[in-house]
Amino acid sequence: MGRPVLLFLGFLIPGFAVPVPLALRALSNLHLSTSVVSRPAVVMEYSIHYIQQKVDHFGFKTDKTFKQRYLIADRHWKRDGGSILFYTGNEGDIIWFCNNTGFMWDVAEELKAMLVFAEHRYYGESLPFGANSFKDSRHLNFLTSEQALADFAELIKYLKRTVPGADNQPVIAVGGSYGGMLAAWFRMQYPHVVVGALAASAPIWQFEDLVPCGVFMEIVTTDFRKSDPDCSESIRRSWDAINRLSTTGAGLHWLSEALQLCTPLTNSQDVQRLKDWISETWVNLAMVDYPYESNFLQPLPAWPVKVVCQYLKNPSVSDTQLLQNIFKALNVYYNYSGQAMCLNMSEISTSSLGYLGWSYQACTEMVMPLCTNGVDDMFEPHTWDLKKFSDDCFNLWGVKPRPSWITTMYGGKNISSHTNIIFSNGDLDPWSGGGVTKNITDTLVAITIREGAHHLDLRANNAFDPMSVLLARSLEVKYMKQWIRDFYDSLRKKH
Amino acid sequence: MGRPVLLFLGFLIPGFAVPVPLALRALSNLHLSTSVVSRPAVVMEYSIHYIQQKVDHFGFKTDKTFKQRYLIADRHWKRDGGSILFYTGNEGDIIWFCNNTGFMWDVAEELKAMLVFAEHRYYGESLPFGANSFKDSRHLNFLTSEQALADFAELIKYLKRTVPGADNQPVIAVGGSYGGMLAAWFRMQYPHVVVGALAASAPIWQFEDLVPCGVFMEIVTTDFRKSDPDCSESIRRSWDAINRLSTTGAGLHWLSEALQLCTPLTNSQDVQRLKDWISETWVNLAMVDYPYESNFLQPLPAWPVKVVCQYLKNPSVSDTQLLQNIFKALNVYYNYSGQAMCLNMSEISTSSLGYLGWSYQACTEMVMPLCTNGVDDMFEPHTWDLKKFSDDCFNLWGVKPRPSWITTMYGGKNISSHTNIIFSNGDLDPWSGGGVTKNITDTLVAITIREGAHHLDLRANNAFDPMSVLLARSLEVKYMKQWIRDFYDSLRKKH
Repeated sequence: MGRPVLLFLGFLIPGFAVPVPLALRALSNLHLSTSVVSRPAVVMEYSIHYIQQKVDHFGFKTDKTFKQRYLIADRHWKRDGGSILFYTGNEGDIIWFCNNTGFMWDVAEELKAMLVFAEHRYYGESLPFGANSFKDSRHLNFLTSEQALADFAELIKYLKRTVPGADNQPVIAVGGSYGGMLAAWFRMQYPHVVVGALAASAPIWQFEDLVPCGVFMEIVTTDFRKSDPDCSESIRRSWDAINRLSTTGAGLHWLSEALQLCTPLTNSQDVQRLKDWISETWVNLAMVDYPYESNFLQPLPAWPVKVVCQYLKNPSVSDTQLLQNIFKALNVYYNYSGQAMCLNMSEISTSSLGYLGWSYQACTEMVMPLCTNGVDDMFEPHTWDLKKFSDDCFNLWGVKPRPSWITTMYGGKNISSHTNIIFSNGDLDPWSGGGVTKNITDTLVAITIREGAHHLDLRANNAFDPMSVLLARSLEVKYMKQWIRDFYDSLRKKH
Repeated sequence: MGRPVLLFLGFLIPGFAVPVPLALRALSNLHLSTSVVSRPAVVMEYSIHYIQQKVDHFGFKTDKTFKQRYLIADRHWKRDGGSILFYTGNEGDIIWFCNNTGFMWDVAEELKAMLVFAEHRYYGESLPFGANSFKDSRHLNFLTSEQALADFAELIKYLKRTVPGADNQPVIAVGGSYGGMLAAWFRMQYPHVVVGALAASAPIWQFEDLVPCGVFMEIVTTDFRKSDPDCSESIRRSWDAINRLSTTGAGLHWLSEALQLCTPLTNSQDVQRLKDWISETWVNLAMVDYPYESNFLQPLPAWPVKVVCQYLKNPSVSDTQLLQNIFKALNVYYNYSGQAMCLNMSEISTSSLGYLGWSYQACTEMVMPLCTNGVDDMFEPHTWDLKKFSDDCFNLWGVKPRPSWITTMYGGKNISSHTNIIFSNGDLDPWSGGGVTKNITDTLVAITIREGAHHLDLRANNAFDPMSVLLARSLEVKYMKQWIRDFYDSLRKKH
């Protein structure tokens, strides 16, 4: 994959370290195959299905439809007193998510649940216009959260109509990251379709000025500082070291060699890309700081931030020494297996398809302001510049972001009239800064997972899970059982 | 005006008596100037404003905007402890609605309320593409309830941002008929924008099979039968009388003369139009069976159904005598002033603009099945034929109705998780058959107005108001005050 991805990110948020789209998306990929390793006892069998969906639920000019893919696993489903766990697919191939949302598989038997994994339009195989889906803003026009939620609602209605026994069963939405936002919004907008939602690591407040734009990178910094204050300080000093070395051709050459880059640095744009790529690596490490070995693009050790920080214990060394240490730290992320011949700045994530879709979404509805000041965080200062962001989006996709629309549509902080949503967040997860981390009401509850990274709770059970995530999952199941009971109680009252 | 309207209706629902679109819309027009007459004490001063709205809230391909009109009346508004009553404009010119929703004017002082009347897109002056707005399905593509609700939400956000003192005030949605549906749906979809809704005569269940399709015409029939069983029986027998007379040219001639039609009947299509037009007249009379003189296209007496039925006391007369009686009855509706030289079958309503928009909406989202069987009602039997309806819509507008979408989007009968909506219905109103007439929860309440016609409660106070509507209004105000109190209580808790 590669180069276009980072080039693009450099373009979209020039000089800025955090590629929001990728950051959110990367996490999905991270799960790939990990859970399979750690959960041999659970059989993950599913069947693949397709449903014809309207390309445009909100207009009647076209009656065009497309095939949305979804997966069903009903091994533990009981028609009598059972339930339906509905995964609100996010920005990627639904089979990845299915294979890597171990939590749903782990609780299926207890909840007598049918598992449904619905692919998000414009991702995986669910392409409204096939190969032309990302061609231009005309073809991309139907890639919105509202359309995706309408797909989910139509799919559930269809299942209830066609699967014998599904009709009178409660449906619970489950999602993580952007999918967690979708799960929460789904319950808010379609409470008649789902009885509740588990929204894991869903930064529904990372919009407009609902939270300070700097909080995300501050949490990344805290993760590193908690491991060792000298670690975050080393990273903070590394940027100027790079800048100083980059002033000469010899310095650029030295940097390219020392970091064993596959493609040598030749100009200041390359240097910016280098810094973006390194920053992104720290961000990703913070998000995936799981307590056990996991497998991203390359395999990662348990508690990878701690491992990285072993190489960054001394910030008060020469520029070259500091950057040699940084190289060793980067190697933890990019070369844990020891197979890499060189480091490729384009290698952070996979699936250009998911990437394209998310970059469009980030340029339209999903505008999540991020910034750094270099004081409260360990990054170079960077303000949030909506004007520039908007111009870049227009150049790229021919669309202009509407940064306040999500708040208008879904309520921002004013959501207390809704019910039955669990917002779970790990305190290590940078996205927790934009999440709901305090109870809003008795039925809009927050669960904080100490030592938890990005939606750790949705991952499969693991022997190295901290107690906090075991408690979180058990509480989540408790709430779900309550919703299921309430559903059947009210059904009985009706009859 | 005129001919195209009825021709169209005959085309849209051939052979069927009830032009749904017009029926709903006509009511709005009915209010024109009536309330001014009956409420001299209340000064109705408003200012006219415009806001730029996105043509498409749900897509980013176009950034085009249009001017939405809205009215503000703030004579009684108090910045301290006040409120905002927001009229969710329906299918017509907003100035009509403003001038004829006396209830809001009557309660403004008590609620210290600013009144806002927002025009619905594609009606009045709020035309997204100016004169081209109704040109084809491409231009009409943005005429949906979802887009209208988004307009309302954006407008309220804008007012809160720009009108000093409005920011921290509770907003209550108020609407009648289709506007009542919008008010209810607005609270359901945007509970963060409005604290509650008064949905007057809102048939939110007149979709799919949520209520029997015959109930509407049964209520019309009941209204006439309650006045006099011989009256409904006379009407029931009139159709065959017309059919028998229409078999010969002489009969057609006699009918045209006896009914003093402006345009003589020449063929069976004309006869169908005649029956549709007469049926529609009975429907309209049932809807506007108000206890005092009111002014529709022509002025109407108090309790017009009773007046009409004075001419229909004997069903057991000859065909010609029966139809002469029908003519006298029609004259109550079409010639109360005695000025008409002939009866014009095209004269039922006004504003072809509103008509066009509603006919498109009825052909897309607002598919409200109606039917008759001639036994439980006084009309010729007519089944609900979705296939035919759909084909006609496609021929007319190039769009196909999605009869189940409204239920998918807004929940159908499964709405108990929402709060703070008053559903008021008059028991004379045929639309009450598709309305919420029983409490769903403590905060989703139904108010039935005995002897009330179509949203009588939204009309201005009148000396001839029955006690039932006075009680209804007083209960409505009580609920609104509770919502306002709750809003300020929770505001205080926050600070």
